[in-house]
Amino acid sequence: MAIIINGKQIAKDLNAQTQQRVAALAEQGVVPGLAVIIVGDDPASAIYVRNKHRKAVKLGIKSIVRELPATITQAELLAIVAEYNHDDSIHGILVQSPLPVGLDEQTVVAAIDPAKDVDGFHPLNVGRLFANLPGHYPVSCTPRGIMTMLGTLNEHLRGKQAVVVGRSMIVGRPMAAMLLNADMTVTVAHVHTKHLSELTRTADVLVVATGVTHLIKGNDVKRGAIVIDVGMDRDENGKLTGDVDFDGAVDRAGAITPVPGGVGPMTIATLMQQTVDLCEWSEELGSN
Amino acid sequence: MAIIINGKQIAKDLNAQTQQRVAALAEQGVVPGLAVIIVGDDPASAIYVRNKHRKAVKLGIKSIVRELPATITQAELLAIVAEYNHDDSIHGILVQSPLPVGLDEQTVVAAIDPAKDVDGFHPLNVGRLFANLPGHYPVSCTPRGIMTMLGTLNEHLRGKQAVVVGRSMIVGRPMAAMLLNADMTVTVAHVHTKHLSELTRTADVLVVATGVTHLIKGNDVKRGAIVIDVGMDRDENGKLTGDVDFDGAVDRAGAITPVPGGVGPMTIATLMQQTVDLCEWSEELGSN
Repeated sequence: MAIIINGKQIAKDLNAQTQQRVAALAEQGVVPGLAVIIVGDDPASAIYVRNKHRKAVKLGIKSIVRELPATITQAELLAIVAEYNHDDSIHGILVQSPLPVGLDEQTVVAAIDPAKDVDGFHPLNVGRLFANLPGHYPVSCTPRGIMTMLGTLNEHLRGKQAVVVGRSMIVGRPMAAMLLNADMTVTVAHVHTKHLSELTRTADVLVVATGVTHLIKGNDVKRGAIVIDVGMDRDENGKLTGDVDFDGAVDRAGAITPVPGGVGPMTIATLMQQTVDLCEWSEELGSN
Repeated sequence: MAIIINGKQIAKDLNAQTQQRVAALAEQGVVPGLAVIIVGDDPASAIYVRNKHRKAVKLGIKSIVRELPATITQAELLAIVAEYNHDDSIHGILVQSPLPVGLDEQTVVAAIDPAKDVDGFHPLNVGRLFANLPGHYPVSCTPRGIMTMLGTLNEHLRGKQAVVVGRSMIVGRPMAAMLLNADMTVTVAHVHTKHLSELTRTADVLVVATGVTHLIKGNDVKRGAIVIDVGMDRDENGKLTGDVDFDGAVDRAGAITPVPGGVGPMTIATLMQQTVDLCEWSEELGSN
């Protein structure tokens, strides 16, 4: 029976650390600031933004939610991003995805000051991660949160096999870069991959981020593997489930994340952690 | 018996195309310009720079070689990079590696205007490649040259297995990104990888860039695989050889690059191609 990786608890511990760091900054008169820009009225986005805002406030982070109508022009949106780029009280800027049709997400992300790119999606920060450059820069929060989870297992990763299923810019690609930087041998699989089961059965660490309900069955998992399920899918009864058939995999895996209560809580906790990082880095380095 | 991939001929054809593009630009009164900065007196670097200069001149590209003493300061070097960043007659800037001790290569590369980053090493361009962003941007020349070679084979890559051995920023990592963007299932192996032979035997496309002479033996190669050898090593007799034991692999591979005459000539030909790309893109888009 596998260790069930308790993302809820790990996120709670991380949030407690973040709260302490915020308190220490407050003693120096510094308040980390997060600006979340939301355009249009996508209901799921509204919930995500509200959750981020509440968590930030709870931890003592200054949180601004800027709600903009779907009719806003690209130029107007870029002007608002520029406003926060120049606002010294804001250390992290996040533009909630997806943007309404007519607005170009890549252009907006590239307009965020890389030093305030709290989502880690700016191509400059993506490049730094992929090049494994030294120094401080933000990275994508979900894979960073997964690295934090892996850290709690005290498993030796170097030289072992990682398989990442999914190649999105939010999870799969940065996850692969982080595991490669941790000296794992890394394979990226995706929708075009043939013989997926054969491949996943070689993985000491298997990260699945496809959005395909129960794509990975129990016998697709190597015995003793660490299985990280990034899926947040709905089964036929509307119940939240993952990309991995947990019940099938739990007997073979060495450690596994449940859904819910696994990766989910880590993303927002890492976002808060990274907001405080950006604040501390800006204090150390000047607002570069 | 494998197809021997004739890098010399493919490079020659690419150079002929580049020369035609330069001639077409000349009719519009436009001359692509390449500035190569070399610091100190490393003899190997001097040869590389001379070869680039000669090839550029031969193809009709304006070539400036700026030779600087090893005693130059970082600030002075950055000022010279800035000079070419602002020079409209220069479309590509390259700082020859390695720099003497005391100069920080990453800082210098990051100071090059990304639109003139002809080596494709600027983290912004690395990030664009890794994120598979649309649009025009330079990428690392050796892996781009390898993609050109693969293109000549008319092999279907999508869904097949690629293994890249080596994870440098010059070859391994950008190569992995390009093969992933070509819809291959990609594994990156490196010095910490265990069971390397087992892994390389799964590769439909095997790219080896380690600098370890004959690391890959004949029976490490899958029957019918495409084998790309980036090594430029010296054997015990001082003869140029590769990371792959060519004689052992040639009977199993479907196609293989020799050393010399394989990947080697592609890098410089791709550098010339990319100089002309940068020139054309700057004409289309303004000097952004």
